[in-house]
This record gives sequence, C-alpha cells and structure tokens, in this order.
Amino acid sequence: MRNFKLTLEFDGTDFFGWQKQPGLRTVQGVLEEVVRDVLGEPAKVTGCGRTDAGVHAWAYVCNFRSDTGLEPEQLGPAVSSRLPADVIIKGTEEVPGDFHSRFDATARRYQYRLSTEKTAILRRVTSYTKYGLDVARMAAAAEFVTGKHDFTSFAAAGSLDDVSPECRVSHAVLRKSGAEVVLDVKADRFLHHMVRNIMGTLIEVGRGKISSEQIPVILCKKDRTAAG
Amino acid sequence: MRNFKLTLEFDGTDFFGWQKQPGLRTVQGVLEEVVRDVLGEPAKVTGCGRTDAGVHAWAYVCNFRSDTGLEPEQLGPAVSSRLPADVIIKGTEEVPGDFHSRFDATARRYQYRLSTEKTAILRRVTSYTKYGLDVARMAAAAEFVTGKHDFTSFAAAGSLDDVSPECRVSHAVLRKSGAEVVLDVKADRFLHHMVRNIMGTLIEVGRGKISSEQIPVILCKKDRTAAG
Repeated sequence: MRNFKLTLEFDGTDFFGWQKQPGLRTVQGVLEEVVRDVLGEPAKVTGCGRTDAGVHAWAYVCNFRSDTGLEPEQLGPAVSSRLPADVIIKGTEEVPGDFHSRFDATARRYQYRLSTEKTAILRRVTSYTKYGLDVARMAAAAEFVTGKHDFTSFAAAGSLDDVSPECRVSHAVLRKSGAEVVLDVKADRFLHHMVRNIMGTLIEVGRGKISSEQIPVILCKKDRTAAG
Repeated sequence: MRNFKLTLEFDGTDFFGWQKQPGLRTVQGVLEEVVRDVLGEPAKVTGCGRTDAGVHAWAYVCNFRSDTGLEPEQLGPAVSSRLPADVIIKGTEEVPGDFHSRFDATARRYQYRLSTEKTAILRRVTSYTKYGLDVARMAAAAEFVTGKHDFTSFAAAGSLDDVSPECRVSHAVLRKSGAEVVLDVKADRFLHHMVRNIMGTLIEVGRGKISSEQIPVILCKKDRTAAG
C-alpha cells in the first residue's frame, strides 16, 4: 500500500473539530468522503491529533493509505477541487509506508489570540476580553510554562483517565500584536483544553488576580481546580 | 430633534451591503430594527454611503434623529447588546442637528486585499489570485490613480446615469504585506465598483498584460470596457 501525507489549513468555525462523529460535520468526516470520491474506494484518514470545535489549523498533518496509481501532484488537486471553502490542502506527498501522522509527530504548536478590542470582521480568529491586561506580567507568567511538567492542573476535567499528564513545552511566549495578545506554545504533546486553560490562567495574571509566580504553584498542585 | 452618530464595524459576508432592501439582510435593515427596539419608535438611519455585498467596514459612519432622553453612553450599549455578532458599535456621539453622514463625509477610504496564497481561515478578508504578480509594477501603476480624474472607465456599467464621474483621489498606494497585496485608496467619493475595477486593472499590470502607463490612457478613454 502507498501512503500519502496531506497538510491542511482549515477554518474550524463550522466544524465540530477534526475527529469523525456521527451526524456532525467534522474535518476528518468531510475529508474521508472527498478522498473516497477521488479514489473510488473508502479510505481511513489518520490525523495528527484531535482539535476542538472552533479551533482553526494552519498546517494540520494527516495521512491515508491506498493502492491508487495517482501521483501526489494529481491527487492533491483532485482532492482540493472537491473540498469546501473552509478546508484547503497546502501540501500532498507520498511518504514511507510506516509514516503515522499522530505517532510520528515530534511537536505540535498552538496559538491563542485574544483581543482587547471587540471586532466583527476578525471575530472568528481572535477571542475578545473586556478586561484591561498587564501584558508584561502575562509574558513573565508564560515563561513558567516552558519545560517538562505534569499539566494535570491545566487539563480538561476527566480527560486524563488513560493519558499521561506530562508534556514537554519547548516554547511558550506571550506577546502583544496590535490590539491582540498572542500566546504561542509548542510542545511534544498537549492535553485536552490545555492551551485555553493556560490562557485563562494568564488572563487572571494579566488582570492582577494572581501573580506570575502562581504558575509553578498551580502546576505543582496537579489539580484542575487550581487553574483559571 | 437630537441627532446621534454611530461608528460601526461590520463583517459584510452575510449582508447584502448597507442599504435596506425588502426581504434581504442588510446592515441598515438590521440596525433600524435594533434602534427601533431601543427607542420604542421607528427610526431612519442614514449611512455615509452604499457598500456592496461582501464588503466589510472598519469604521462606517451613520446617524439617526430622535427625541429620546437617552444619552450616547446609554444608547451605545443598548444598541450594541442587541446587535448580531457581525456588527459592532465602535462609537456613539450626539452631533449637531444638521449633521448628515453622507453629505458631510469629507473622505472615504477603501482597502482591497489580495492574496497570492490560498487561505481557508482568512478567506473572508482577502481575495485569492492564482497569478504571479509583479508588485513593483502594480505599485507604480497605482500612483497614476491619485489626483482628480473622470473615473468612468472604472465605474460599474450603467451606474453613472445621474452621477458625476469625477473623484478626487488623495491617496492610492499598493504594497505587499506577507502573502498579500494591499491596495489602499482614499477619495472624496467613489463610484460603484470603482475600487474592485481599479484592482482588476492593477492585476493585469501585475501579470504583465498591460504596462503601468496604461492607467492614464484608460482614464482618458472614459469607457468601462477600457479597464480590467
């Protein structure tokens, strides 16, 4: 069997995340239908990870196996032309047979964009907060996230039953960009809701509710109720 | 009668432009309904100009008259809280009784954003072109747009029956911004489809179909079929 890797960009607004779910519009569901149309046979598309409803992706990696005689330069446009406007293919390549989008991913990177000014035009790509924020304090707090930690305090309640809570964060930077505060986090893996829970806690720091130094304390507690 | 000025931002994607039209969702239509709810009486909202379907606005000025006892700082939030997510109020102020959003506008400014890379996430705020573009040539061509000209060649066919074709363009700059080419035009007034027709012609310049120096020639022809 040949193995094909696709790199996608998608607008998560109208998707219930990546993972196929009966009766719901998901990226995996839409993509598997299109790939089946192109190949003339069912295909299972493996993604690099789950994404939440409303989360967008700039470069989401997935792969599928097939005996097709089509080459990547034919396959890409054929799939592309059948996709709805909220998913596009940025790259198509043939990869070794044992390549697995999830297991072979070495890092994942998320951005959380928060705006201190309300916006209609960009409301799908930035969250609004009505609070005044001390960005320097938030940036200092974000630094405490870097490193290998048990992130239980920042994981969705009940999401860690069969899952290790340890993540190695190689990069966690918060910066101001115009009216936006942007959190950029790169790690080997992420827990469910981890990025939004980190941002929620950084907002508490930015509002002066807690100090930057509370981040390591919250991490040590290993308790979801400890974080924002 | 008191006179109130609102400054709006709106996402034009799901609107058939500003102007009220029976059976269609328009910004004026939605806003007049909300203002009527707040005031408890019908209100006619005057806009600074028509906008086409799909065109967004960062700072659209409109005004309405009323005998309400509400002050701007009460009126703004009351209207704001009833508006759908694709329209927001950026400013509310009481203005002199004779203020008219359209007649008193001294300038209007439009931006046309074109992307040479396809995007799903930002597809509502940028147009995509598959053509390779010579941006330096386009920028040189944009300079010819500045000044007072008869813009018949760039107006929608049949839109000039009772309308002067003369516009004074104080600013017309085209620049590259990441994967985007952004045209920024400021003028005392604009003709119907003028900005998109200018951009269409600049794309022909960028593709090497015509030279920059064709812009003044096209202007002189005063003929819609002369431009791109």
